[in-house]
Amino acid sequence: MRMVDVIARKRDGGELSTAEINWFVTEFTAGSIPDYQAAALLMAIYLRGMNRRETVDLTLAMAHSGDQLDLHDVAPFVIDKHSSGGVGDKTTLVVQPIVAACGVPVGKMSGRGLGSSGGTLDKMESISGWSCSMDLAQFKRQLAEIGLVLSGQTAVLAPADGKLYALRDVTATVASAPLIAASIMSKKLAAGADAIVLDVKVGSGAFMPTVATARDLAQIMVDIGTDAGRKTVALISDMNQPLGSAVGNALEVKEAIETLQGGGPASFWAHCLDVSAHMLLLAGKADSLEAAQELAEKARADGRAFRKFRDMVEAQGGDVAQIDDPSLLPQARFVEPILAPRSGYIAALDTAAIGWAGVHLGAGRLVKTDRINYGVGFVLPCAVGDYVAFGDSLGTIHADDREQLEQAREEVLTAVTWSNEPVDPLPHIYETITA
Amino acid sequence: MRMVDVIARKRDGGELSTAEINWFVTEFTAGSIPDYQAAALLMAIYLRGMNRRETVDLTLAMAHSGDQLDLHDVAPFVIDKHSSGGVGDKTTLVVQPIVAACGVPVGKMSGRGLGSSGGTLDKMESISGWSCSMDLAQFKRQLAEIGLVLSGQTAVLAPADGKLYALRDVTATVASAPLIAASIMSKKLAAGADAIVLDVKVGSGAFMPTVATARDLAQIMVDIGTDAGRKTVALISDMNQPLGSAVGNALEVKEAIETLQGGGPASFWAHCLDVSAHMLLLAGKADSLEAAQELAEKARADGRAFRKFRDMVEAQGGDVAQIDDPSLLPQARFVEPILAPRSGYIAALDTAAIGWAGVHLGAGRLVKTDRINYGVGFVLPCAVGDYVAFGDSLGTIHADDREQLEQAREEVLTAVTWSNEPVDPLPHIYETITA
Repeated sequence: MRMVDVIARKRDGGELSTAEINWFVTEFTAGSIPDYQAAALLMAIYLRGMNRRETVDLTLAMAHSGDQLDLHDVAPFVIDKHSSGGVGDKTTLVVQPIVAACGVPVGKMSGRGLGSSGGTLDKMESISGWSCSMDLAQFKRQLAEIGLVLSGQTAVLAPADGKLYALRDVTATVASAPLIAASIMSKKLAAGADAIVLDVKVGSGAFMPTVATARDLAQIMVDIGTDAGRKTVALISDMNQPLGSAVGNALEVKEAIETLQGGGPASFWAHCLDVSAHMLLLAGKADSLEAAQELAEKARADGRAFRKFRDMVEAQGGDVAQIDDPSLLPQARFVEPILAPRSGYIAALDTAAIGWAGVHLGAGRLVKTDRINYGVGFVLPCAVGDYVAFGDSLGTIHADDREQLEQAREEVLTAVTWSNEPVDPLPHIYETITA
Repeated sequence: MRMVDVIARKRDGGELSTAEINWFVTEFTAGSIPDYQAAALLMAIYLRGMNRRETVDLTLAMAHSGDQLDLHDVAPFVIDKHSSGGVGDKTTLVVQPIVAACGVPVGKMSGRGLGSSGGTLDKMESISGWSCSMDLAQFKRQLAEIGLVLSGQTAVLAPADGKLYALRDVTATVASAPLIAASIMSKKLAAGADAIVLDVKVGSGAFMPTVATARDLAQIMVDIGTDAGRKTVALISDMNQPLGSAVGNALEVKEAIETLQGGGPASFWAHCLDVSAHMLLLAGKADSLEAAQELAEKARADGRAFRKFRDMVEAQGGDVAQIDDPSLLPQARFVEPILAPRSGYIAALDTAAIGWAGVHLGAGRLVKTDRINYGVGFVLPCAVGDYVAFGDSLGTIHADDREQLEQAREEVLTAVTWSNEPVDPLPHIYETITA
């Protein structure tokens, strides 16, 4: 097989064979195909696309490029969830304990923040002593004992994805639906999930700008999961405003704890409830979404979900005093309100800009080596459709530096679009995509 | 400037600025832009194209990437010709001496054979002692003294082209009209030509399969030349059959000598006459194509053109005894006729297949390091439209090995398509493209 022929076929809009895709992924991962040939193929895929069969083949080849977990010795049914990322997205911190509390073990390997989106591991590391480092044996032991694990990469999952992603990043070939879908799903398949709930974000703070593009991506991922023999469902959920009120690591942990204890923003809880219910439904714990939601409600109401979260923090070395009293979590030196510069309805929020404002405060990284400031961020209870009077508070800025605080205020206010006319509130889920 | 932004703009079908194109060519030539980013850009250009301004900018940037010759101290008007390559194309060997004999100095840096197309330097090296190696001082001295030079690369012309071509070759991005045009024209501009005659081949032995695609390429090259301030004309000429009868190095030199002496195949002479006339016209030696053709005819008829050729061979160390008696040129051990397996009209010839058959005999290189066998090849006086009776000779095979000879016979016969009905002969020029 010659790489130049493979590139030429895709360049001309042709279909790559299973053998060609397997060969490319294997040889590229092994370093036998140079980056420049892979880059040309990626651009051809970007512009010519891939059909369902090709995309599934690519995903499977990437999933098979490294370790493949089998957790069935400690969990009879393995369920995983994935969010495409967004601002204020602390869903995993609430959903995982709920599902585990309902008797479905969930072991998840998570990632760090990227761009304006926060990362689950970064958020959890607000808790003193909490660690995501463990080996596979520890991962399995904790999954068997508590039914809940949140770790970093304990195995080499889909190394082809890491290599391809790095190349896509520097060759302007990131925003390709089949390549994004294959990247996400290859890691889920390698992690051994029997079922996968995909939370595909859409809007001003998401990678996908419109419901139509998000639907395309979601459908491709559901197709991949289905063809790979995994139960898969995708929710297309809103990211035209931050999810919940808190943006910033410790602030988000605090909001997750409040939510697990029955409080927290109603819109955020509604989202967690839907994601949890879909996971419980796929795991066979209920016959309908409504019944699954009831299970989730109950696990929250009776404190089981919160206790699961606390057990997980304890098992991973975290200071549970901070869980029992979130005021002990890292706090910023300055907390100031953001006052509305005018009266009116909030018509739109530039959610990515709010995410970047958080990064500029120190809540995220501009370069990989940046250290995160866990206490800083925003609490923004305002939402699209709210009426706000001049001088009312839109929320609070939490900062350690006066200058950064003023810059963040400016950035958040610039992110708000106002209207004199009433504006409809945003749904939290637009569509559900099933096989 | 970030390369990833440049790639993304072209990926999305946008137009690259002059500054972006200059920056890319400069940095890529300097090794500051990695091959994988250049490969992604090349594929985006392949699939999205480039407009006239972008193509001219790319060509000029490539032309400026290395040495830029100025031959005006030895030649008042510098004219160059380029052929897109084909089978049996020994045009340069005839046209250059004719134009030089008419008082227009022509110094040409030529190339080696590629694929099924032979190279002018390889052909000339059939002559014992003849060398294409010289420095720029020697090149200029010979141009001043004889008015005729045929050399290899005596200067570093458009090194960006060499680097880009090597990358295009392994990333399936060769067959892009703007990239081909920029590659060809950048070397012509760097070589300091005031005027350029382009011989764009079309047909079964050419890179361009149809007149339409050849016309596109020719028009782009004429546009580049015009915008760069050079007089440029392109001939779209036939390569649906070998040019002339001889295919193979020494056999082609012999045919060129016969042609310079007033013999040779009429169709080949007609082609040489047209190319020569366009060169003389651009150089201002005549007022019309007809008048220019008369000059060329005269330079052949009175022996001046042949003597120019002989002078050039002598000046470059070649054995003129072989020019005076071409039977002294390398000869193959076996010469056998190819007999027609049926009666009928020749409807079509797979010219590339005939070229490859020559390569398999040893007339060209399968890999760069292959040594050329100068004596081998074909003499095929048959042409599309000819009627041939069963058992008549289609031509001769010249080989040094019996097995190769039989394989070549098979390959040539397979390349012939027969018809029971009369077939029109092929024109030798389809169109002339001017600014």
